[in-house]
Amino acid sequence: MPESSRSLRVAMIGYGFMGAAHSHGWRVAPRVFDLASSPVMQVVVGRNSPAVAAAAAKWGWAEHSLDWREVVERDDIDVVDIVTPGNLHAEIAVAALAAGKHVLCEKPMANSVDEAVVMADASRRAAERGIFSMVGFTYRRVPAIAFARELVLEGKIGEVRQIRAEYLQDWLVDPEAPLTWRMKEELAGSGALGDIGAHAIDLAQFVTGDAIDAVSGVLRTFVSERPVLEVSQGLSGTSSAERGAVTVDDLALFTGRFRSGALGSFEASRMRTGRKNALRLEISGSLGSLSFDLERQNSLQFYDATARSTTHGFTEILVTEPGHPYLSGWWSAGHMLGYDHSFSNQVFDFVSAIDAGLQPRPSFDDGLQVQRVLTAVHESSNTDSAWISTIPVPAFA
Amino acid sequence: MPESSRSLRVAMIGYGFMGAAHSHGWRVAPRVFDLASSPVMQVVVGRNSPAVAAAAAKWGWAEHSLDWREVVERDDIDVVDIVTPGNLHAEIAVAALAAGKHVLCEKPMANSVDEAVVMADASRRAAERGIFSMVGFTYRRVPAIAFARELVLEGKIGEVRQIRAEYLQDWLVDPEAPLTWRMKEELAGSGALGDIGAHAIDLAQFVTGDAIDAVSGVLRTFVSERPVLEVSQGLSGTSSAERGAVTVDDLALFTGRFRSGALGSFEASRMRTGRKNALRLEISGSLGSLSFDLERQNSLQFYDATARSTTHGFTEILVTEPGHPYLSGWWSAGHMLGYDHSFSNQVFDFVSAIDAGLQPRPSFDDGLQVQRVLTAVHESSNTDSAWISTIPVPAFA
Amino acid sequence: MPESSRSLRVAMIGYGFMGAAHSHGWRVAPRVFDLASSPVMQVVVGRNSPAVAAAAAKWGWAEHSLDWREVVERDDIDVVDIVTPGNLHAEIAVAALAAGKHVLCEKPMANSVDEAVVMADASRRAAERGIFSMVGFTYRRVPAIAFARELVLEGKIGEVRQIRAEYLQDWLVDPEAPLTWRMKEELAGSGALGDIGAHAIDLAQFVTGDAIDAVSGVLRTFVSERPVLEVSQGLSGTSSAERGAVTVDDLALFTGRFRSGALGSFEASRMRTGRKNALRLEISGSLGSLSFDLERQNSLQFYDATARSTTHGFTEILVTEPGHPYLSGWWSAGHMLGYDHSFSNQVFDFVSAIDAGLQPRPSFDDGLQVQRVLTAVHESSNTDSAWISTIPVPAFA
Amino acid sequence: MPESSRSLRVAMIGYGFMGAAHSHGWRVAPRVFDLASSPVMQVVVGRNSPAVAAAAAKWGWAEHSLDWREVVERDDIDVVDIVTPGNLHAEIAVAALAAGKHVLCEKPMANSVDEAVVMADASRRAAERGIFSMVGFTYRRVPAIAFARELVLEGKIGEVRQIRAEYLQDWLVDPEAPLTWRMKEELAGSGALGDIGAHAIDLAQFVTGDAIDAVSGVLRTFVSERPVLEVSQGLSGTSSAERGAVTVDDLALFTGRFRSGALGSFEASRMRTGRKNALRLEISGSLGSLSFDLERQNSLQFYDATARSTTHGFTEILVTEPGHPYLSGWWSAGHMLGYDHSFSNQVFDFVSAIDAGLQPRPSFDDGLQVQRVLTAVHESSNTDSAWISTIPVPAFA
Repeated sequence: MPESSRSLRVAMIGYGFMGAAHSHGWRVAPRVFDLASSPVMQVVVGRNSPAVAAAAAKWGWAEHSLDWREVVERDDIDVVDIVTPGNLHAEIAVAALAAGKHVLCEKPMANSVDEAVVMADASRRAAERGIFSMVGFTYRRVPAIAFARELVLEGKIGEVRQIRAEYLQDWLVDPEAPLTWRMKEELAGSGALGDIGAHAIDLAQFVTGDAIDAVSGVLRTFVSERPVLEVSQGLSGTSSAERGAVTVDDLALFTGRFRSGALGSFEASRMRTGRKNALRLEISGSLGSLSFDLERQNSLQFYDATARSTTHGFTEILVTEPGHPYLSGWWSAGHMLGYDHSFSNQVFDFVSAIDAGLQPRPSFDDGLQVQRVLTAVHESSNTDSAWISTIPVPAFA
Repeated sequence: MPESSRSLRVAMIGYGFMGAAHSHGWRVAPRVFDLASSPVMQVVVGRNSPAVAAAAAKWGWAEHSLDWREVVERDDIDVVDIVTPGNLHAEIAVAALAAGKHVLCEKPMANSVDEAVVMADASRRAAERGIFSMVGFTYRRVPAIAFARELVLEGKIGEVRQIRAEYLQDWLVDPEAPLTWRMKEELAGSGALGDIGAHAIDLAQFVTGDAIDAVSGVLRTFVSERPVLEVSQGLSGTSSAERGAVTVDDLALFTGRFRSGALGSFEASRMRTGRKNALRLEISGSLGSLSFDLERQNSLQFYDATARSTTHGFTEILVTEPGHPYLSGWWSAGHMLGYDHSFSNQVFDFVSAIDAGLQPRPSFDDGLQVQRVLTAVHESSNTDSAWISTIPVPAFA
Repeated sequence: MPESSRSLRVAMIGYGFMGAAHSHGWRVAPRVFDLASSPVMQVVVGRNSPAVAAAAAKWGWAEHSLDWREVVERDDIDVVDIVTPGNLHAEIAVAALAAGKHVLCEKPMANSVDEAVVMADASRRAAERGIFSMVGFTYRRVPAIAFARELVLEGKIGEVRQIRAEYLQDWLVDPEAPLTWRMKEELAGSGALGDIGAHAIDLAQFVTGDAIDAVSGVLRTFVSERPVLEVSQGLSGTSSAERGAVTVDDLALFTGRFRSGALGSFEASRMRTGRKNALRLEISGSLGSLSFDLERQNSLQFYDATARSTTHGFTEILVTEPGHPYLSGWWSAGHMLGYDHSFSNQVFDFVSAIDAGLQPRPSFDDGLQVQRVLTAVHESSNTDSAWISTIPVPAFA
Repeated sequence: MPESSRSLRVAMIGYGFMGAAHSHGWRVAPRVFDLASSPVMQVVVGRNSPAVAAAAAKWGWAEHSLDWREVVERDDIDVVDIVTPGNLHAEIAVAALAAGKHVLCEKPMANSVDEAVVMADASRRAAERGIFSMVGFTYRRVPAIAFARELVLEGKIGEVRQIRAEYLQDWLVDPEAPLTWRMKEELAGSGALGDIGAHAIDLAQFVTGDAIDAVSGVLRTFVSERPVLEVSQGLSGTSSAERGAVTVDDLALFTGRFRSGALGSFEASRMRTGRKNALRLEISGSLGSLSFDLERQNSLQFYDATARSTTHGFTEILVTEPGHPYLSGWWSAGHMLGYDHSFSNQVFDFVSAIDAGLQPRPSFDDGLQVQRVLTAVHESSNTDSAWISTIPVPAFA
């Protein structure tokens, strides 16, 4: 971090599980990558004073605050990083963009298409003034995923025909797992679909460079009542005696048709016993295929159908070589990256785009497209799994 | 094979790829298992005289014939084994049962529900006379699959909530792969759905002991015209210059609701580049889960959610121990079985049931249930993926 | 099996676990491969009359006999297949060759170098008269292994530098596992070393086309006393109350220097808990490497260091394509072979060589070379792991 | 990091590849773990002024210096972290301990037993004054490894009989890979043996809680001349036209006898084509076994031989649960850790021990024991692989 570099002072709104990950990203990125602007961890914002103060001290934010409205107006803030529950994203993002702050917003971008449209409009207007926004689909920053996109765009697997994208977890298998905000529709918008399915949708579209234009699907809630959360821990916590209604899905199954004609099969589940964080993507093309599993985050499976038939097979590429995306800043070949490294990579991409005066991706338009898919799945589930069109954004991919 | 044992003289109708596998089963089973009745490979039947004669010599059938109608009436035949294309199954099976022959019929049992109903009726009537019939869902005989069913029925994974069943192949990825009878609707009934999806459906129902009562799905043909087959080889062959229309699906995607309330996600594809024979099943329950892939045929993955949390994980069980299903007759622990061993295991089950005077499973009623699911998927695909009910057989499971 | 083909009448001496596997090979090979000569399973020989009679009936041998000396002299016998404990190999093989019979002898070929020299001499003399002999290193017939050799000989991995060969089992982990003939030096010659280590040695030499010319190693017996066997079952059986001394190793660790200068690291263990039949081979060369594990018998891992660095990785080749060794006679791509298929492939190679009047491999000279390595390991273990030279056969590889 | 906490001002001597990793550890640990003392990244020391200044700026050290002797004497320094080539370890460590600084020293601790003895003596004397030292065997801090040790000490695999430990890399396969200090005996002490074999030795001893008391082995240099390094990058760099002699091994193979009687088989190689960073450990005991591969850093394979025989198998434990070692401070279950997280875990252990006034492990006595093993392997390699005794430290494990 050259001392001469411009500072980029960051305010982070929210301080839950994602706050820890984002803090890590802001802290580490400048130590690994060469950034023209140096992020400064200025202020973290929350509603509970002792908790937000503790978060500031623990994660190294210079200040803490209880008032996001005041913070997003401060002259000494350049970036607003939103890690709150989804119901607050739109209001904060619009206010921050209006105040001339660059915005990094966690996914899913919004709880409804209406909110997302407002955000995307605000984002486009701000971009004209050189103020940029980005959605936190962090898994795009996993080197194996970014490399998969490179291979697809290079034509290594030919014409894409089938996509299988699934995000499988099991933390709701136990009916006594407590009811968190992620299981309440008014806060989270949807359940497995919006929380983890959104990642699967974004990755399928990102890696193929294509967009889903119609879906047919079904949502299901297997456990509809749970003990109310007492103390939050990571993504879960401890339970109280009281019980409350789960108002979101814990499983989403749907088929998506892409603009190219490819067909995708999607699953988002918190009920796949034994699968802890299995975000998986397999893309089958006319000349090859690619397969990825987040539980083997540093590997990409590549099948090259143009190789001679006797040595055909899936090649397990350890995506840790200097020539792989993001890797030049990290360790030597064969040294693994972990969950939080993607947040540093994300900061690198976000800051680099801002420094270059370019729109970072995924943009709020990209986030809106994912929101349209999520909403269409809901609608299909409510109408006998009928095919529901998503209205594709004009300049997608 | 004690010399005192009763003979069971077999006629096999058809002699393609499945004929080789069935011949293997008849030949090997009595050398591995103790059977009360000894199968005798009496006659193989086909329409092309030199070819069927060559098959008889190669595979060790005592005779060959060009006339199945005559053969199924012969007094010296006890069992009729049907390995023809699906459009002939119903006529041959009904005739054989009427003539008092036990029938083993390849899957899918029929090309339509109507045919399957006729076959199931004939089968039930014959069973009253001690004449039995069975469908060749051979993968039930893979030890790992049979063991998975044991674990589910023992309650080891608790209440089943989700099933993922997929059968992935890639032999149609190449648009120049020739047009065989398996790609013509009038002969095969359906494409990937009926040929390989039928296995996925049968296994999902077999392992869970449950039945699919409604489906929503979509069929797709990616390559709709292919060069006509000149000479058959295995499942494929060499091409001529002429081209013909593919009239069946090469991809089927559907969701199935089970009677218990469980949800299943199904895929049958011949377009999943790099996947050669990936019949995969994952069953997620409230207390554990099971996962299987035919490309690792001798393994079963078992996750026991009741174990202590720090040693949780998928256990790769090598299903080659003497205590595993079918294994007592085979090799020592750690010695692999292959594709054709399931045909020997199938003969063992079929002959054992006949010897015991019991209905072998899967019965023609079981085959009818699979046919109802296949037909419902077709119908759903034709009606905007609407949910279509299957009418479950009364005594299923 | 064309009716016009010449018969090759086989006598099998011995009827234990290997007898079952060999019988399978003789029975199945002519149904899969086109053989000029047709094997006839004529007579099985053993010392226990009811047991050998039962084996004959079960496995389909036309006759049984109690007297191997008489059988090997019979005019109507063309091939003698030796599956007895190692201490009888030399005497039977020499007698059979003298009587003009082709000989297939289980491995390890002998219990000592002296015996092996006698056998190799007899074999060379017989070969001059068109009478051939072969050692049963069956794992050479696993398609993935045969294909690995093809790739090495094609130069795909460049100059071989390192070999890791291990054969790991765990059936002696339990100190109460009974004492079988395989644990008695006078019958088996050695323990893990000769029984399973011999396979690792043979494969390392076979796949590289190179020979070990010196070794340094250590043998160990972890459990030196066991209950005496009462009834044999597979490779083990049930125990009696009496205890006896284990007089062979249950672990062998050694380093081998190859003539090319490559270094090999070897292990044979029956104490590797959880490993059931893990015969593994990894060969590292200047341009690539190959890796195999018998517990995934149908796969070969291939790393091509000449590929572009970002798509480097181990490719899991499913060795089930028609272009792979032995596969043209078997099933379609993606259909697995099992343990006993190698015995059919072995019969194919043995009979094809005899029909062509060519020396089948591995010859008794090859077996002698393995015996020299085994003996050198013993000697090294007895002399503070000093390096002991093996005397390479002149025309090896 | 509570503001009230005591500061622990760190000087890091050296700034190569390991300097980046150590910096990461010092930066991140206090943001993840609750530490009584707060590390302050005070000064980084090197010989090349612009390069060390750049390292200080990039990694966030407050100052840089060219004179380690001066720095280790400074009153405002509490900890000296040594990441230089091995030939400087002893001198720096002894001086720092004499000056009353806690010392963290990279592995291998020294280039000879003599140096290591001096260091261990200095360490013991310093410990009496409350000044502590530790060796940087970082892989002990991989959660899966720490958990493996817990399972062994709990008795979950019973009596340990066999250990297989290997560290496989391939960055020297290419004969044109440049000659770095790691390939010069006078700087590095030894090659693959000391650099990566030392990790394998330490882990084998750490996880079993046992010590190697004798070894027999062989060293080999496959490529003995290489182009001289021009510019360093990661572990390698770019080449000049000049060539120089490689004076260390690129392969070490040895057998180690443990005090308990267990036998270990060890390999350290930079010539295992395709293996990037495969530090693997398999421990076989009378009741179970454990298997680990650093290329799947977050997994541990556990085989429980006491489970019922039909569900036996290796369980792939994702060592990412809150109950696993080090994990409470990190992410949720199923979220991966990477290479550098172990350096944060190492800082946590080191600082926690200092705060508690306890000797951190691995101590310099532990480092000395590893050095004795390394030296014994050298000696054995020079004396026809004879067994060479190591003199175990009295209070090991």
